[in-house]
Amino acid sequence: MPYRAPVADFRFLMDHVTGFDQVTATDRFAEATPDLTAQILEEAAKLCEDVLAPLQRNGDTDPARLENGIVRTSKGFAEGYQAIADGGWVGISADPDYGGMGLPHTLTTAVNEMMSSACLSLQLNPLMTQGQIEALEHHASDDIKALYIPKLVSGEWCGTMNLTEPQAGSDVGALRSKAEPNGDGTYAITGQKIYISWGDNDFTENVCHLVLARLPDAVPGTKGISLFMVPKRLPDENGNAGVANDLRVVSLEHKMGLHGSPTAVMEYSGAKGWLIGEPHKGMAAMFTMMNNARLGVGVQGVGVAEAAYQHALGYAMDRKQGKAPGTGAIVEHADVRRMLSAMKADTYAARAITLACAVAIDMATATGDADWQARAAFLTPIAKAFGTEVGMAVSHEGVQVHGGMGFIEETGAAQYARDVRVTAIYEGTNGIQAMDLVGRKLMDGGEAAFRLLDEIETCAEEARTKLPELGEAVWQAAETLRETTEWLVEQDMTDRFAGAAAYLKAFARVLGGTYHLASAIHGDESRQRLAALYIRRLLPEHVALLAQVRDGAGTVAALTNEDLAA
Amino acid sequence: MPYRAPVADFRFLMDHVTGFDQVTATDRFAEATPDLTAQILEEAAKLCEDVLAPLQRNGDTDPARLENGIVRTSKGFAEGYQAIADGGWVGISADPDYGGMGLPHTLTTAVNEMMSSACLSLQLNPLMTQGQIEALEHHASDDIKALYIPKLVSGEWCGTMNLTEPQAGSDVGALRSKAEPNGDGTYAITGQKIYISWGDNDFTENVCHLVLARLPDAVPGTKGISLFMVPKRLPDENGNAGVANDLRVVSLEHKMGLHGSPTAVMEYSGAKGWLIGEPHKGMAAMFTMMNNARLGVGVQGVGVAEAAYQHALGYAMDRKQGKAPGTGAIVEHADVRRMLSAMKADTYAARAITLACAVAIDMATATGDADWQARAAFLTPIAKAFGTEVGMAVSHEGVQVHGGMGFIEETGAAQYARDVRVTAIYEGTNGIQAMDLVGRKLMDGGEAAFRLLDEIETCAEEARTKLPELGEAVWQAAETLRETTEWLVEQDMTDRFAGAAAYLKAFARVLGGTYHLASAIHGDESRQRLAALYIRRLLPEHVALLAQVRDGAGTVAALTNEDLAA
Repeated sequence: MPYRAPVADFRFLMDHVTGFDQVTATDRFAEATPDLTAQILEEAAKLCEDVLAPLQRNGDTDPARLENGIVRTSKGFAEGYQAIADGGWVGISADPDYGGMGLPHTLTTAVNEMMSSACLSLQLNPLMTQGQIEALEHHASDDIKALYIPKLVSGEWCGTMNLTEPQAGSDVGALRSKAEPNGDGTYAITGQKIYISWGDNDFTENVCHLVLARLPDAVPGTKGISLFMVPKRLPDENGNAGVANDLRVVSLEHKMGLHGSPTAVMEYSGAKGWLIGEPHKGMAAMFTMMNNARLGVGVQGVGVAEAAYQHALGYAMDRKQGKAPGTGAIVEHADVRRMLSAMKADTYAARAITLACAVAIDMATATGDADWQARAAFLTPIAKAFGTEVGMAVSHEGVQVHGGMGFIEETGAAQYARDVRVTAIYEGTNGIQAMDLVGRKLMDGGEAAFRLLDEIETCAEEARTKLPELGEAVWQAAETLRETTEWLVEQDMTDRFAGAAAYLKAFARVLGGTYHLASAIHGDESRQRLAALYIRRLLPEHVALLAQVRDGAGTVAALTNEDLAA
Repeated sequence: MPYRAPVADFRFLMDHVTGFDQVTATDRFAEATPDLTAQILEEAAKLCEDVLAPLQRNGDTDPARLENGIVRTSKGFAEGYQAIADGGWVGISADPDYGGMGLPHTLTTAVNEMMSSACLSLQLNPLMTQGQIEALEHHASDDIKALYIPKLVSGEWCGTMNLTEPQAGSDVGALRSKAEPNGDGTYAITGQKIYISWGDNDFTENVCHLVLARLPDAVPGTKGISLFMVPKRLPDENGNAGVANDLRVVSLEHKMGLHGSPTAVMEYSGAKGWLIGEPHKGMAAMFTMMNNARLGVGVQGVGVAEAAYQHALGYAMDRKQGKAPGTGAIVEHADVRRMLSAMKADTYAARAITLACAVAIDMATATGDADWQARAAFLTPIAKAFGTEVGMAVSHEGVQVHGGMGFIEETGAAQYARDVRVTAIYEGTNGIQAMDLVGRKLMDGGEAAFRLLDEIETCAEEARTKLPELGEAVWQAAETLRETTEWLVEQDMTDRFAGAAAYLKAFARVLGGTYHLASAIHGDESRQRLAALYIRRLLPEHVALLAQVRDGAGTVAALTNEDLAA
């Protein structure tokens, strides 16, 4: 079954569930009229269904490879990329002064989800570029902005992030790459970077690397890190890609999946770079880039979940086996239907969470309001970790729906599970997200969390007349979560961290219940049935998760290293 | 970190938790003295650690392939297989009259787990042979037994199962392969079979296929299926492998993992076969084979979980990153420790369940007692589905512990996750196991389930003085499970099936809690700490799962096909 973009879901979630109307009511995003929104979604859907989805298998069967120092990309990816660039899809939310459309990040989020469904490995390329554009908008000088952003928005050039080094992964502060002043305002960058997604390609004129490195006078740790723009080809006097810079792709990684996306080991040998932002403030600049990229990665998870769901549903509708009632296809078997319905309900919940996070980002951008900022910051790690967990769980279950065929690569089900696996790891592992949530994002004493819980309970109250049972279940879940949150903010970090992953997932479960409930209130019977399924079957998981949170460091910290090795 | 066989765990679980002393107290298994048991485990551990574990990566990097109709196996597999055969490890539980050791299936289970940890793709070969030996012991004529079993036990020949056809997967009754009488007591077998694990190799003299096919007078469906022995090479007058039979490997599947195990499409073109058991009773014979094979597959899951855990632990103990306290390695980070401790606790629980199932099988064999038979039958689907789910979950988390390195194939973490994936599918998908549990295995009105629950509560009572909090938690969980079981046996199949997977997992969670509790009662503080972790953090999942069970067909059946496709 070919991919069909869930445009109706996006519109419904925007119009009735996630408060997108608040975004379009701002001056900043007044241009995002319902008509324009509809048009954007329809156009993106067409691109994804017709142009990108047919490329998805190529990424797996014809992986990116390194030939004599040149990265060769999968069949059709150059044309697919060109279609993305031509449609202006890289810069939907970029500054119009530099060629962007200036539209809400919520729209970028919907479009990115569709592109992730259609061809995850290719979509990762513009996702990286979007993050780079944002970092430059916030931190670069006007000269750098004027030179780079238009080329990035147009897709003529693309961008990468260079953080990780062999000894510095989640602990970015341990990085050792050096930046020596050249005396002309530029710097000579030296060092090796690993896990560079789309470190090179054979379809853009230039590849712009944002590289974290240390100036000669840098202190150790994260406070001694600066950010540099290091292009593959140096811009000439006209701002076009000129001579080669001193950098190269050493090798591409042999990965579990996402083979269409070349993951490079990069070597910088005194490459010329330009400082972005203040010296030693590279981490702050990188965080701007990473925060929205984290949402973007959560959205990748949702996109793969949707595609894997549709793929499995198509198989289950088609495949006859045994004495199934109704159509005689395996979708009529209770256990297959159980899997498919949970896959759909979870994907919908994760989608709603990513869109709600995007709405908060847009409101923060449009209003500068601290509450919206706090809300966006709170929802981002949830959107990232839960979105990618749903991506993994749904694609995994998609394999199961296929039975024996699921294990055979030609079926395509396994590719979703392999491709999406990395989304739980990159842009900060899901463990890092969870620690961010219970650490930094609860530093306000839980204020942002409690505001969200107030809204959840308001929604649950609203449902009490129309859908009393569902409303009550969500209200109860929110109360339990509130009590645990009140307890959690009183604990020290050791106790918080051991339950962090469980707390994040429990919050996501309750948010998912809320958005399903809101959908049931404002939607048709079909949405009510899906909401009932989520609330009755999936929401109860929060109880088990919160039991883990309440254990604190408890039993985890009690286990000694000898116990683990016994 | 090289694989170390968990011999101490096996001995502890046998001696103190799963009632293996009852097995060795029977006449049938009196030879399995503590000394012999210890010796068997130690010898098997040595084989697995020194000979088989070094081959594991070869299965992935140098997959089995078909060259001019001949299957070429991975580097070192021939020697590894020879070591398994020479050690007599194929026939630990086989009949001594035909060269087997006649030892308890519990020992086979422990040995199979170690072999699965060491090299899953190779271990699948003797596992299939063990199933075939058992089917022949129960259903074949004396001539066939005398001819085949000694060769299978010695490992000179190996065995396969041929059930699936393109249109007949979980619905075996739809198969179309034909068996025409040759007039000399033999049959001409014609048809195509798919997903034949180890359909051929280049290291045994012969490959013995047990093939399901239809006699000319067969009725449609499962009641018209007969079982045939169809060897690759026909035995000559001396019982040695002679001329080639009319069968061939058409192709090998391109799979997500387990590349060391050649999964064949087999073509039978009038191949000579011998009827095994009664005409049209092939399914019953196949079920003998499949029941213990199902436990064997659950054990594969546990084996991979153990190996993936050890692999991840080794990395976490070694890898320095960030400001970790203690040793400075990532194992000191709360979230990494949280993952590792859950991986260990779950692996232990799943191991205990598979051993308890094996003990029940041995007691049923030794005593013929119907209660033991019912217990074995009840525990088998749980052992299969939970063992393989733990295998998937733990290997998946093993990837996560590795961070970015987990997605890179050279690390080896991803291979565990890819290899183990099929165990949830073959020998009856985990969905089939769950339906078997709530369908056939509750046909007794829940008697076998309630007997198990009585034992669980006895164990929980026993713990109440020594470990009151843990004992209480397990007792409560058992009570909740009992109430749900009482409710479930009153429901019709539609309601049972929609909650089948959740019921199976909830039962496994509670069993796991019980075996951990028993370990805590009889073990040292280290086992108590692990039990506390399982009971406080993992056992509570039963609440969420039983909520799904109680929903019955409810919200799942309510969703229409249009809802799913919306």
